[in-house]
Amino acid sequence: MNNQRAVIIGAVAAGGSAAFKIKRINPEMEVKVFEADQFFSYAACGLPYYISDVIKDYSSMIMRTEKDFHAGAGAELYPRHRVNELDLDRREILVESLAENKQKKYPFDQLLLATGASPIMPRFEGMELEGVFALRTLKQGLSLKDFARKKDVRKIVIVGGSYLGLELAESFRALGKDVRLLEKMPQVMGSLDPDMAGLLEDELQHKGVVLHKNEALLGFEGDAKGKLRKAVSTRSSYEADLAVVALGVKPNSELAQNAGIKLGAGGAISIDRRLQTSAPGVYSAGDCAEAYHLILKQNVYLPLGTTANKQGRIAGENMCGGNAVFPGTLGSAVVKVFDLLAARTGLSEKEARANTIPFDSVTIKSLDHAAYYPGSRPLHVKLIFNPADGRLLGGQLVGSEKGVKRADIIATAISAGLTAGDLGEVDMAYAPPYSRVWDPLTVAANAAISKIRTAY
Amino acid sequence: MNNQRAVIIGAVAAGGSAAFKIKRINPEMEVKVFEADQFFSYAACGLPYYISDVIKDYSSMIMRTEKDFHAGAGAELYPRHRVNELDLDRREILVESLAENKQKKYPFDQLLLATGASPIMPRFEGMELEGVFALRTLKQGLSLKDFARKKDVRKIVIVGGSYLGLELAESFRALGKDVRLLEKMPQVMGSLDPDMAGLLEDELQHKGVVLHKNEALLGFEGDAKGKLRKAVSTRSSYEADLAVVALGVKPNSELAQNAGIKLGAGGAISIDRRLQTSAPGVYSAGDCAEAYHLILKQNVYLPLGTTANKQGRIAGENMCGGNAVFPGTLGSAVVKVFDLLAARTGLSEKEARANTIPFDSVTIKSLDHAAYYPGSRPLHVKLIFNPADGRLLGGQLVGSEKGVKRADIIATAISAGLTAGDLGEVDMAYAPPYSRVWDPLTVAANAAISKIRTAY
Repeated sequence: MNNQRAVIIGAVAAGGSAAFKIKRINPEMEVKVFEADQFFSYAACGLPYYISDVIKDYSSMIMRTEKDFHAGAGAELYPRHRVNELDLDRREILVESLAENKQKKYPFDQLLLATGASPIMPRFEGMELEGVFALRTLKQGLSLKDFARKKDVRKIVIVGGSYLGLELAESFRALGKDVRLLEKMPQVMGSLDPDMAGLLEDELQHKGVVLHKNEALLGFEGDAKGKLRKAVSTRSSYEADLAVVALGVKPNSELAQNAGIKLGAGGAISIDRRLQTSAPGVYSAGDCAEAYHLILKQNVYLPLGTTANKQGRIAGENMCGGNAVFPGTLGSAVVKVFDLLAARTGLSEKEARANTIPFDSVTIKSLDHAAYYPGSRPLHVKLIFNPADGRLLGGQLVGSEKGVKRADIIATAISAGLTAGDLGEVDMAYAPPYSRVWDPLTVAANAAISKIRTAY
Repeated sequence: MNNQRAVIIGAVAAGGSAAFKIKRINPEMEVKVFEADQFFSYAACGLPYYISDVIKDYSSMIMRTEKDFHAGAGAELYPRHRVNELDLDRREILVESLAENKQKKYPFDQLLLATGASPIMPRFEGMELEGVFALRTLKQGLSLKDFARKKDVRKIVIVGGSYLGLELAESFRALGKDVRLLEKMPQVMGSLDPDMAGLLEDELQHKGVVLHKNEALLGFEGDAKGKLRKAVSTRSSYEADLAVVALGVKPNSELAQNAGIKLGAGGAISIDRRLQTSAPGVYSAGDCAEAYHLILKQNVYLPLGTTANKQGRIAGENMCGGNAVFPGTLGSAVVKVFDLLAARTGLSEKEARANTIPFDSVTIKSLDHAAYYPGSRPLHVKLIFNPADGRLLGGQLVGSEKGVKRADIIATAISAGLTAGDLGEVDMAYAPPYSRVWDPLTVAANAAISKIRTAY
């Protein structure tokens, strides 16, 4: 497999990880990486904190520089190069240099589609108005920060109450703005169950965010100069100097689709466990691709940075002739909302129901450390499990940073196929500033065991 | 099994847990609890923080009051009642009321020995001097705090650099005292490997604790009034207004031994997996008893509050005719040393070596959250694993609170029999204030996999 030509489309999480992995395994392999953006390999998850000025210098969010790609890894990076066409028969791509406005063909033996995702932007009225933003790329982050920091920008409307929407609510409040958040569903954070999401809603309102649930955006209205003035919803209309549409993302899978590659869950590029697409030698990884779900045992569309990085490495290994398999996602995720964090892993009740998987759940309230040691904070723990055998299916936590870290314990337990009983028996560490003698997770596991014993 | 007479000796962690468990399972059972101390069911782990005044009111550390025992659980509590003799043939105990100076016999059908442990106090010269303390009970904590807060108490010598010694070093520095810590071994915290313990030593010295390793106490010298003046070591002698001997604990197993009950590891009361001693119907739990070790698959002496509480519940269940089994300890523990926490679980390298268990290890340094998000702190992670199959044997972490919480993830992984490879595949949650895209534990697991692949 030496001296083959590998081409990677996209240089952010998955693409970058793949390029570096290939060069580590096989330094002789030629690796070309094409990226349409001028920025690449940056931590998009940091953008809300850049907006709020918690992160002052955007360059700190850049994970790999052009020099890292070239001198460090020996990969050839082409920033501001957009891939317009993929020809599977000739095994070549048509690439446009955005700086020079020229097109050129590049051949490949192994190809990785790591084209990422784009914000979902429905065709609302007024989307083109000055002051209406999406936030996905670093470039968008720079513009949004400049605009938000203007003194005459007072009233901000956020459309969508998922991860990004909630993080931005905190960011804009930190800048002293009036913040209104519209969510068309009856709860924020659809990946949590309503009871846990409710705790975040309380925190948002407590921190001065005006929350509008069950209320969808209809469009925006502007003034004669094309500047945003109002956001119009299904219930009312609100003055707005700035609006961010944060309705999630959709996979950038057009290039693959136009080449005849099969799409799958959520319109993402369909892949096997080795991350190969329907075209031999063509792989896909990251936010443009599906991910195998560990519990559902099928591919889903669940774009997350952690998955993108892991898939990138696996794709890189397989492009070198490897046989690595993506182990599977649990949709593990965490979000900070002012002074609360919410973490989740595995299936929510809603997801279990939608997949007709039998489940039961318990929710307990405890503290993140000993009650008598100052500074303890409430910790809410929810466990979702199979009522027949107690096998863990999911977990959700709301509380402090150290409190919700237990989501990763639950993820580990689910990966290992543990039951609530097994989890309750784990010997966890204790000291007053750190936890409780009966760890909140042990308490939740014991509650699950009791419920199983009583009910069945 | 109704209406039997259960007697419990000791009302702190194990004894209290057992009493409440019995009454929950079988409210008809007669439960008498004898406790020599006037205080009972208090959180001894909080004492160092009571000394430093981080915890101002000692009553907040009392977990269960006399009323909880009586009115709440329906158990009869006898505080200040010392059990002087156990007669297995007659199945009765001889109890002395310390208030009334009277002795009385009580019969039992089921007995629990939860007599706890006492500080190891070698027969050093001058142990009787005013100003020489041990710290185990709440009563000792009250005296020590009173004494330490005196203005003329400036120079403090702590003998022993394990959990309690390190916590007290922090407490006394918080009170503005000069603190010297003597440790006869070449490292503090013998339950950690030297590399990880070294990080704690740096922190101690950085915070102004004068650390003397490889230096043992020989004795104390006092003045004519019997007041402590000096601590004399194998190397020198040091002025001291106060000294605390913190050399660990030994099980209170004399009562059992005198009754002919078998002792085991470390002189603790020998028990089977159901926590029954060599005498039928007589159980033991907590710091006076052995604990089954999950990896070593044999009983060890590893007194920890978490184990005491769990064993207490299991003993209670079995005293009601149950068949519960103590799942096993991993020696999971955590200690706060000023601004650092150190957590450990499973076997250290030293323990693996002592038990001739094949092992290898990796240590990585990472951060507890994204580098570009303010406030990230170093996190050191060590994994110990079987070099043949990668199965996890132990883990040690030094860093921030939320950082070292990963010890419980490792404990869960060990309990489930996971390999480093399995751990590396777990889908952990990520957000910039919470972790890193590549969780430090994933990085450590991947380092272990690389080492296994390269070496074997």
